[in-house]
Amino acid sequence: LKLQQLCDLLNLQYDSKKDIDITGLNTLQDASNTEVSFLQNKKYLSELKSTHAAAVFVTKENSALVPEGSIALISDNPYVSLAYASKVFAPLVIEEDGEEAIVKENTIIQENVYLGKNTKIGKNSILMSGTYIGDNVTIGDNCIVYPNVSVYRDCQIGNDTILHSGVIIGADGFGFATDEKGKHIKIYQNGNVLIGNSVEIGANTTIDRAAFASTIIEDMVRIDNLVQIAHNCKIEYGSVITAQCGVAGSTTMGKYCVVGAQTGIAGHIEIAPFSTIYAKSGVSKSIKHPNKHWAGFPLNEHKVWLKLQAKIQKLCFPEKLLKG
Amino acid sequence: LKLQQLCDLLNLQYDSKKDIDITGLNTLQDASNTEVSFLQNKKYLSELKSTHAAAVFVTKENSALVPEGSIALISDNPYVSLAYASKVFAPLVIEEDGEEAIVKENTIIQENVYLGKNTKIGKNSILMSGTYIGDNVTIGDNCIVYPNVSVYRDCQIGNDTILHSGVIIGADGFGFATDEKGKHIKIYQNGNVLIGNSVEIGANTTIDRAAFASTIIEDMVRIDNLVQIAHNCKIEYGSVITAQCGVAGSTTMGKYCVVGAQTGIAGHIEIAPFSTIYAKSGVSKSIKHPNKHWAGFPLNEHKVWLKLQAKIQKLCFPEKLLKG
Amino acid sequence: LKLQQLCDLLNLQYDSKKDIDITGLNTLQDASNTEVSFLQNKKYLSELKSTHAAAVFVTKENSALVPEGSIALISDNPYVSLAYASKVFAPLVIEEDGEEAIVKENTIIQENVYLGKNTKIGKNSILMSGTYIGDNVTIGDNCIVYPNVSVYRDCQIGNDTILHSGVIIGADGFGFATDEKGKHIKIYQNGNVLIGNSVEIGANTTIDRAAFASTIIEDMVRIDNLVQIAHNCKIEYGSVITAQCGVAGSTTMGKYCVVGAQTGIAGHIEIAPFSTIYAKSGVSKSIKHPNKHWAGFPLNEHKVWLKLQAKIQKLCFPEKLLKG
Repeated sequence: LKLQQLCDLLNLQYDSKKDIDITGLNTLQDASNTEVSFLQNKKYLSELKSTHAAAVFVTKENSALVPEGSIALISDNPYVSLAYASKVFAPLVIEEDGEEAIVKENTIIQENVYLGKNTKIGKNSILMSGTYIGDNVTIGDNCIVYPNVSVYRDCQIGNDTILHSGVIIGADGFGFATDEKGKHIKIYQNGNVLIGNSVEIGANTTIDRAAFASTIIEDMVRIDNLVQIAHNCKIEYGSVITAQCGVAGSTTMGKYCVVGAQTGIAGHIEIAPFSTIYAKSGVSKSIKHPNKHWAGFPLNEHKVWLKLQAKIQKLCFPEKLLKG
Repeated sequence: LKLQQLCDLLNLQYDSKKDIDITGLNTLQDASNTEVSFLQNKKYLSELKSTHAAAVFVTKENSALVPEGSIALISDNPYVSLAYASKVFAPLVIEEDGEEAIVKENTIIQENVYLGKNTKIGKNSILMSGTYIGDNVTIGDNCIVYPNVSVYRDCQIGNDTILHSGVIIGADGFGFATDEKGKHIKIYQNGNVLIGNSVEIGANTTIDRAAFASTIIEDMVRIDNLVQIAHNCKIEYGSVITAQCGVAGSTTMGKYCVVGAQTGIAGHIEIAPFSTIYAKSGVSKSIKHPNKHWAGFPLNEHKVWLKLQAKIQKLCFPEKLLKG
Repeated sequence: LKLQQLCDLLNLQYDSKKDIDITGLNTLQDASNTEVSFLQNKKYLSELKSTHAAAVFVTKENSALVPEGSIALISDNPYVSLAYASKVFAPLVIEEDGEEAIVKENTIIQENVYLGKNTKIGKNSILMSGTYIGDNVTIGDNCIVYPNVSVYRDCQIGNDTILHSGVIIGADGFGFATDEKGKHIKIYQNGNVLIGNSVEIGANTTIDRAAFASTIIEDMVRIDNLVQIAHNCKIEYGSVITAQCGVAGSTTMGKYCVVGAQTGIAGHIEIAPFSTIYAKSGVSKSIKHPNKHWAGFPLNEHKVWLKLQAKIQKLCFPEKLLKG
C-alpha cells in the first residue's frame, strides 16, 4: 500500500512528494522505514525523536518533533487514525487461498480438528478432537494439543510443547481508540504469538496476539490454568505463572520468575529475572532488582509485607497484645 | 399452565377460585399478571406490596401483605418453592421440533459448527469451527464468532459483534435454593442473554443467562478475556471491562464505565455512569456519583486510596521517614 | 514394572536383592507396598518413618530414616527422580486399544462429540456438540454435558450432574521438578478426577487431575464459572464455590462451606466444614473451627475484618471523625 493511499483512506492530508510503500504499523521504537507509527502519549516523545518509522500519526502540535526522514501525518486524534489504519492492514479472518496443511510423520490428528491453510504440524505430535488451528500456524514436533484448543492464525509453537484443553492462543489483544463521539474503534491486532520449546500451558489460559509484532512465551515457561497474558507481553525462559494470574499488555517478565496465583501485573513494565511474587499480589511498577521476594498490593518485599500486616494488626487491636 | 396445576405439582395448598394461566416466574418488581413471584428476603417487602404478580410464594407470616389482585401461595420456604417451580417452566435443553436454522447471504459457516433449531444468522457473518449456537438464537450481520464459542439457547446477539474463542454466552446463572435437609435445589435459569451491536467479548469470558428476563450487554461494550458477568446484570453503552473481572448477579453498570483488571463487583448494586474503577478493586456497594475514580477493597476514591496506602506505610514504618 | 528396571531407567543404583513389582507412585502417606514414594521436604520426615511404600526416593542424608520393609532409592534430587519416574507410569495420551464406548438408553449424543475407548455413559443423559470425553471415562445417569466440555481420560462423573460449556475436567495438575540446570521436568499427573452425584459445575471452570490418586468433588457441590480447583483437592458434600475462586493443590474443603467470588485458597490446608469465606479473601492457613465467617487477606474473622478496615480509616484519616 502506498502511503498516499493510506492517507486517502483515513481522510488525512498528505503533502509529501515521496511515494512510499507501507507494509504495516508498529511502535515508534520498533517501526522500520516501511512502517507507520503514532504518538498518542507524551511520555513517548523521546521515542518519537529517534523513530525510524516511514511516517507518524501526530497532532499538529507535535508534528515539528517528527525526525527528518519520517513524515508527519497530522491527525486530530492520532490513536483513532492508528485504529482506522490497523483495519487496512488486517489479514483476512479466514484465508481464501493457500496450501492445504502439511502434517509430518507419526502425528495423530483426531476427528473434528480444523487445520487452516499454509499450516504446518511437525512429527510425533497429537492434536485432539475439537481443536482449531488457524491459517499459517506452525506447530513443532512432539507437541500435545488437548481437545478444544484454539490457535488463531499466524501463531507459532515450538517443539515438545503442551497446550491443555480450552487454551486460546492468539485471540485479539484488547485494543481500541475512542473517538470524540464516544465510539470505540477497534485496533486490529495484526501481530501474532510465538511460543517456544518445552512450554506447558494450562487449561482455559488465554494468550493474546500482539497489536504489532509478537507476544512471546520463551522456552521452558510453565503457565497454569485460567491465566491471562495480554498482547505484546514477553515471558522469558523458565518462568512459572500459577493459576488465575493476569499480565497486562507489553510487560516483560525476566527469566525464572515465579508468580503466585491470582496475581495481577500491570502493563508496560519489566519484572527482573528470578523474581518471586507471592499469591494475590498486585504489581504496578517495574521490579528492577532481580532475585527478590515480593507480596501484596501495593507491592512490598515479602518480608516487609509480613511486618506491615503484623503492624497493622497491632495498631488496630493493641488490646490483643495485652491478652497475648 | 394453570396456577392450580402448579400448586399441585409443588404440593402447595390452593384456595383461590380463580383459574389463572401462568406463563412463568419473575421478580416482584417485574412480574406481570400471568407470572408468579416470591418473597424470600424481607428487604423486598415494599416490592411485595406493589407487585402485579398473579401469585406470590410467601410464608404464612407474610401472606397478609400480598396485595389485592395477587394470590398468596403459602410455603414454608418460598425460595425452595420457586426453585421447584422454575423446573416446571424450564424449556427443553435441546428442542425436539422446530425449523432448520436460517443463514443469510455471504455468511461463512465453517465445518463442525452446530446450529440449533429456529436459529437465525444474519448476513456477512463468520461462524468458525467448533462453535455451538443453540436453539432459538439470533445472531446479526457482520459478526465474527471465533472457534469453540458456545451460545446457549434463546440468546440474541446484534450486528457487528465479535465473540472470541471460548466465550460462553447464556450458561446458567448460579442459582439454587437450599432446603431444610441441606439439599441444593437448582433454580432453572429460564431467561436469556441479549448482546447489542458493535460489542467485542474476549476469549474464555462467560456471560450467564438470566434467571428471569435477560442479562443485557448494550451496544459498544468492550469486555476482555476471562471475565465473568453473572445472571441479570446489565452493562450499559460503551462500558469497558478488562481481564479477569467479575460482576455478580443483578448489578447494573452505567454507560462508559471503565473497570480495571481482576476487579470484583458485588451483586444487586448500581455503578454510576462514567465511573473508572482501578485494577484489583472490590466494589461492594452502589457507586452513586458518576464520573469519579475508585480503587481498593474496601473501595475508596482513587486519590483517597493512594493517601491511605501512603499513610499506612508511614504509620507502620515511621523510621523510614527519618531515613528518607 | 520391576523396581530394578525403574532404577535402571532413572540411572539410580539398586542394591536390594528383592524383586518387587511396582504399580505406580504415591505420597509417603498413601503409598502401598507396590508403590514408590519420595521425600523432598523435611516437614514430611514423620511420614517417611511410617510409610508403607515399597521404596522411597531419598537423598543419601535421609536414607537411614527409610523404615524397614521399604527400600531407599538414593538420589541427589528425589523430586527430579519422581518426575522422571512419573513419565514411566504415565498412561497413553490416547488409548490405542479398547472397547468402543457404551451409551445407555435414552441418552442423546449430539454430533461432533468424541467418546474415548472403554468409556461408559449412563441413561437419560445429554452430551452436547463439541464435547470431548476421553478414554476410560464414566458418566452417570441424567447428566447434562453442555457443548465444548473436555473430560480427560480416566475421570468419573456421577448421576444428575451438570457440566456447563467450556468446563475442563482432568487436565494435568501443575507439577514439575526443576533440576540443577534449571530444566523443569514434568511430573506426569497419573491420577484422575472423581465427581459425585448432583453436582453442577459452571462455564469454563477447570478441575485438574491428581498427581496420584484422585481430585475429589463430592455430591451436591456447586461450583460457579471460571473457578480453578487444583490437583488432589477434595471438596466435600454440599460446598458452594462462587466465580473466579481458586483452590491450590491438595487442599480439603469440608462440607457445606460457602466461598465468595475471587477468593484464593492455598494448597495443602484444610477448611473446616460450614465455613463461610467472603469474596476476594486469601486463605493461607487451615481453618480449624467450623461454622465461622471469614474475610480479607490476610484472613480474619469477618467481624474482625470489618473492624480492622474501620480502624485503618480512623488511624489514617482522624480528621474525618471530627467532620462526621
